[in-house]
Amino acid sequence: MVNGFECPIPISDYDRITLAHGGGGRLTHRLISQLFLHLFDNEYLRPLHDGAVLEMDGKMAVSTDGFVVSPIFFPGGNIGDLAVNGTLNDVAMCGAKPLYITLGFILEEGFRLKDLWEILVSIKKRSDEAGVKVITGDTKVVERGKGDGIYVHTTGFGRVLEGVEIGPHRVRPGDRIILSGPIAEHGIAIMSVREGLEFETPLKSDTMNLWPLVESILKAGKEDVHMLRDATRGGVASALNEIAKSAGAGIVIREEEIPVRDEVRGACEILGLDPLYVANEGKFIAIVSPERADELLDILRGVPGGEEARIIGEVVEESPGVVQMITAFGSRRVVDMLSGEQLPRIC
Amino acid sequence: MVNGFECPIPISDYDRITLAHGGGGRLTHRLISQLFLHLFDNEYLRPLHDGAVLEMDGKMAVSTDGFVVSPIFFPGGNIGDLAVNGTLNDVAMCGAKPLYITLGFILEEGFRLKDLWEILVSIKKRSDEAGVKVITGDTKVVERGKGDGIYVHTTGFGRVLEGVEIGPHRVRPGDRIILSGPIAEHGIAIMSVREGLEFETPLKSDTMNLWPLVESILKAGKEDVHMLRDATRGGVASALNEIAKSAGAGIVIREEEIPVRDEVRGACEILGLDPLYVANEGKFIAIVSPERADELLDILRGVPGGEEARIIGEVVEESPGVVQMITAFGSRRVVDMLSGEQLPRIC
Repeated sequence: MVNGFECPIPISDYDRITLAHGGGGRLTHRLISQLFLHLFDNEYLRPLHDGAVLEMDGKMAVSTDGFVVSPIFFPGGNIGDLAVNGTLNDVAMCGAKPLYITLGFILEEGFRLKDLWEILVSIKKRSDEAGVKVITGDTKVVERGKGDGIYVHTTGFGRVLEGVEIGPHRVRPGDRIILSGPIAEHGIAIMSVREGLEFETPLKSDTMNLWPLVESILKAGKEDVHMLRDATRGGVASALNEIAKSAGAGIVIREEEIPVRDEVRGACEILGLDPLYVANEGKFIAIVSPERADELLDILRGVPGGEEARIIGEVVEESPGVVQMITAFGSRRVVDMLSGEQLPRIC
Repeated sequence: MVNGFECPIPISDYDRITLAHGGGGRLTHRLISQLFLHLFDNEYLRPLHDGAVLEMDGKMAVSTDGFVVSPIFFPGGNIGDLAVNGTLNDVAMCGAKPLYITLGFILEEGFRLKDLWEILVSIKKRSDEAGVKVITGDTKVVERGKGDGIYVHTTGFGRVLEGVEIGPHRVRPGDRIILSGPIAEHGIAIMSVREGLEFETPLKSDTMNLWPLVESILKAGKEDVHMLRDATRGGVASALNEIAKSAGAGIVIREEEIPVRDEVRGACEILGLDPLYVANEGKFIAIVSPERADELLDILRGVPGGEEARIIGEVVEESPGVVQMITAFGSRRVVDMLSGEQLPRIC
């Protein structure tokens, strides 16, 4: 029994994935019908056809994402939580209410069936919370040593809210930059496990569904939200750089406005990491019109997960494509894109 | 230069994927903008946002598929050809014209950039041929030894043809079973490389886009095509078993009607494989109404790739869920679902 879900096939600690689970025969069929269909049963999945057929209309947002996080289980979640939240958040960043998700697994021979069940239960919980249906899936198995337990690929779909248009072309000088909360928690949670660090307050991943936050500001000011981006791989620094480059605009942020929890800052110092470049899985940046910025900030702060949102800077005319930070000492420095790899396999 | 496509960044034999290519920083950005965007440029992909926004209306078919084939390059294609054709074929099996595809890559550190380029060019060619746009993607890199060169995940979308309804609920006793051509070619092509077998006529994978074939019979008799299934993993035997089980109907096929090329049959004998269970990547089964079966067969034979289509059997009332074969000697035997794994990593 995991989180209230009983697995329909009895699983012992010794049951493991075999190559035959990916062969398209009897064992694949059993895995799909007894585990996947049992948990995710809905009208789209039930026919177990090669694909799902669904009615769509209007502007749909589609996003695809692969998850290779190591370790697979970490403080605050597992690869299943990340896969659902991460993909649906990308859909949300298009201004779209997430509706459907597809699941693809690459399993390594020898992976524990118990662990797979626990991940599937997390996927079930996160997708139920988000009101999202799993519509189709795929499972492949590779030989021992050719994978790393489990890799997950998800594609999410959602309907863009009426009248909403999110994109770099809408970013204008003067726009304010809202950050939805304190940064670097996901990356540090993963790194502290890998490095065997222990803290008084355990550091947990911030993985969460961002749609309720996004929806709150879109409903209050659909014209005033110009651009959205979650600050995942490469952290806030990379997300801001991508916005600056795609919008052809300059960005100036103030270091003292960027929230970082003390224990996260401490861990960053020990690990030699700059929190601006560390991955988040439950934080986003919204570029909004200056006239409504304070009001939208207040709304965001009223939604769970947005309590510590801040206006961290603004869009400027000078230095298009460049992100600058006014440091705590009042000097300016360029916040460049991450070059090289800081934290492999963070998501 | 690969197949007429020049790579925009000079690639030597020594250039390889590094962990930094998956870090979300500068190298990821370069990979995406200089390779992916260069090849697949279109209005959905160009904004390089987290997701793509597109207009959809009506019944859409969605299918997702992971590809872990080994070897990555094989006679008749590579993992890129398979990924596009395989996913779009699943969309086609829903009676839908494929329109869009997403691409997810899991690359192993050390993978040759040259090989990645060759695979991307194949993806470009196959998607262009099919009139399909690559709308969004994702790239992750895992450490050396945690993957196997490249794994690909694709999600395909298409619009279901007006008035078409494909599904096991439409299968009726008396319906004829059409097989689109000779079987077992993909699986045998892969296995002969793995086993180092050489034949006078080289055995090539049959990977192809099945939509033109499917479209031809749907346009001629949208009411008369009841069920479609491509015979991939687990071969024709598994596809027929899935149809029989999901439709709650019996199926009888005649061995002598099932086309197998001589060289494939020979290879199957050497390798100890039953061609009925060997994977195809360019063959499908159509369950059609008896009144129009001959006419639809003629139409299929007029389309490239369908010249050798045959009616191989029919749906019966007795033994629901069971597939039986009348052998060349006139006896009957049950064609069971594949149990265990015959050919790992065939797709």
